[in-house]
Amino acid sequence: MKVYLDAMGGDNAPKEIIKGAIEAKAEKGYEIILVGKEDVIKEELKNLGKDPKSFEILNATETIDMHDDPIKAVRSKRDSSIVVGCRAIKGNDEAVFVSAGSTGAILAGASLFTGRIKGTKRPALGVVLQGLEKPVLMMDNGANIECKPEHLLEFAKIGSLYMKNVYGIKEPTVGLANNGTEESKGSPLYKEANALLREKLPNFIGNVEMKQLFFGEADVIVCDGFTGNMILKTVEGSLTFAVKVLKGVLKKSPKNMLAAALIKNDITQAFSGFDPSATGGAPLFGIDGIVFKAHGSSDSVAIKNAIIKAAEFHASGFMAEARECFAAKDEAVEE
Amino acid sequence: MKVYLDAMGGDNAPKEIIKGAIEAKAEKGYEIILVGKEDVIKEELKNLGKDPKSFEILNATETIDMHDDPIKAVRSKRDSSIVVGCRAIKGNDEAVFVSAGSTGAILAGASLFTGRIKGTKRPALGVVLQGLEKPVLMMDNGANIECKPEHLLEFAKIGSLYMKNVYGIKEPTVGLANNGTEESKGSPLYKEANALLREKLPNFIGNVEMKQLFFGEADVIVCDGFTGNMILKTVEGSLTFAVKVLKGVLKKSPKNMLAAALIKNDITQAFSGFDPSATGGAPLFGIDGIVFKAHGSSDSVAIKNAIIKAAEFHASGFMAEARECFAAKDEAVEE
Repeated sequence: MKVYLDAMGGDNAPKEIIKGAIEAKAEKGYEIILVGKEDVIKEELKNLGKDPKSFEILNATETIDMHDDPIKAVRSKRDSSIVVGCRAIKGNDEAVFVSAGSTGAILAGASLFTGRIKGTKRPALGVVLQGLEKPVLMMDNGANIECKPEHLLEFAKIGSLYMKNVYGIKEPTVGLANNGTEESKGSPLYKEANALLREKLPNFIGNVEMKQLFFGEADVIVCDGFTGNMILKTVEGSLTFAVKVLKGVLKKSPKNMLAAALIKNDITQAFSGFDPSATGGAPLFGIDGIVFKAHGSSDSVAIKNAIIKAAEFHASGFMAEARECFAAKDEAVEE
Repeated sequence: MKVYLDAMGGDNAPKEIIKGAIEAKAEKGYEIILVGKEDVIKEELKNLGKDPKSFEILNATETIDMHDDPIKAVRSKRDSSIVVGCRAIKGNDEAVFVSAGSTGAILAGASLFTGRIKGTKRPALGVVLQGLEKPVLMMDNGANIECKPEHLLEFAKIGSLYMKNVYGIKEPTVGLANNGTEESKGSPLYKEANALLREKLPNFIGNVEMKQLFFGEADVIVCDGFTGNMILKTVEGSLTFAVKVLKGVLKKSPKNMLAAALIKNDITQAFSGFDPSATGGAPLFGIDGIVFKAHGSSDSVAIKNAIIKAAEFHASGFMAEARECFAAKDEAVEE
């Protein structure tokens, strides 16, 4: 398996990306190809004390940044690292592409240049949250601001395959994020999605309220991308807030500072599951190839972890099952 | 001012409600009228060691519970405590109604039997979250699952008046919850709402991402009721989760238990701002009278606090300003 790594994507590119590649290669022996401006990459390898020839480089003369309109950018910058990376893995099951670049651009690039799994309508973004007792996959998180019920069904199917293949959950359950557990709850989209999921998915457990997000109600929770983005960012804000409140308490008095010294390591460890560096990243769902999005603020450790996660994902057997699942004729997914 | 209190509403009715009334009367000397089944209320007063004549009672022979369809229930149960309470305060500026009953039923009852502020289209639910440095009012939280941009403008106006009159913020700022800060972000509703708020509201600061919810970006954050409900329940779930993770750490070892003993009181105090008992409740916005919703799980302390909050809200001058605001001709609010 080859790892194509976008050397130009992310807040800390190219230095931290290339450092991450060096670390992943040293630790796991992966064959990593750096995608980006050849001269910049060679210079950076030299700066890091490495032979510029120690990595294969796939030259891409353009870059796409966070300010570019994603769709316009991938259409006009055909020699950008994102487009070149997405093209490199097209039709090649023995390759993965990892990028910490603009999510929108990676999504657009992967859709256009890697292609979608046959039978799917929409690529989607998912994220696995570490719940109190077990993980939960939330999707879509912003790839599809407007959805139809059949898109939510598609997310449910592909999300179940992910939790089965990557997290080893034999029969993952699916919940529909909603503002109440009753079938009649929600906007028209959610009422229709509830009915469709009930009809088509044996593993559908019904609506899930977001106060249950971390408490194991379902293995996969689906919603439209606008709602998913709101939920995820609310989680981020709420947990950041809780940690800040806690830090305030721990600094409040000499007595509390003593307590802080006693529990500091355990607190750090307990809350580290929410650190993007630790989780590495997430695949784009519905793409006919493995395109892995690392967090934009990734440092070398996060990049190394993203590469490892992408390799594990490659080994999981997910892609074959996903292709088979959507190749089967299913009217609900047909437009 | 008279306080009409729904003695039959909430998980702990009638006992905790009536206890709350006794405590509020003892502490603040309010004139409290208990609304509900007269015989049940008298019996409960006796059980609590009080003279059954110590409170005026407004008899209401029916009750509405959480399982009733809100709109059908208020239409068919005209002698329910919610309907009787909502009618009791209609046109009476020297009265407030407090209930811990079904939110949907109170909303429907208040809309139909107390009436809306002239010039408003939609009643709404708001909640004030205690942010890191200052409070933020989130609305709508579930009263209006489907919204138009002009409804969000209405929420923004009435929410600003609330933060000004009740929280003393001279010029409250308004943000639009969205999946990105750029004007082009969001579903069509959110794009249109952004444009309308920009045009009509001098105090509009633009889109706010939910990772900023607790960090003082705006004094009022508006969204449709479906999204608001998802956000609020995600906050509830995330903070509950964080507290559980923290409790796990504090019980992990004898060393940690020692630390826990040192910081327990400060931790409890720091996180108490999110305890529904402490906050008491929230008014229904857009209703032409003060209808105050206490949390369904309210105990006597929460009921006492809700009564005090409702009385403070009554004294704030909000209603007069709200009537004036919407009486002024404003095409954006006209249908």
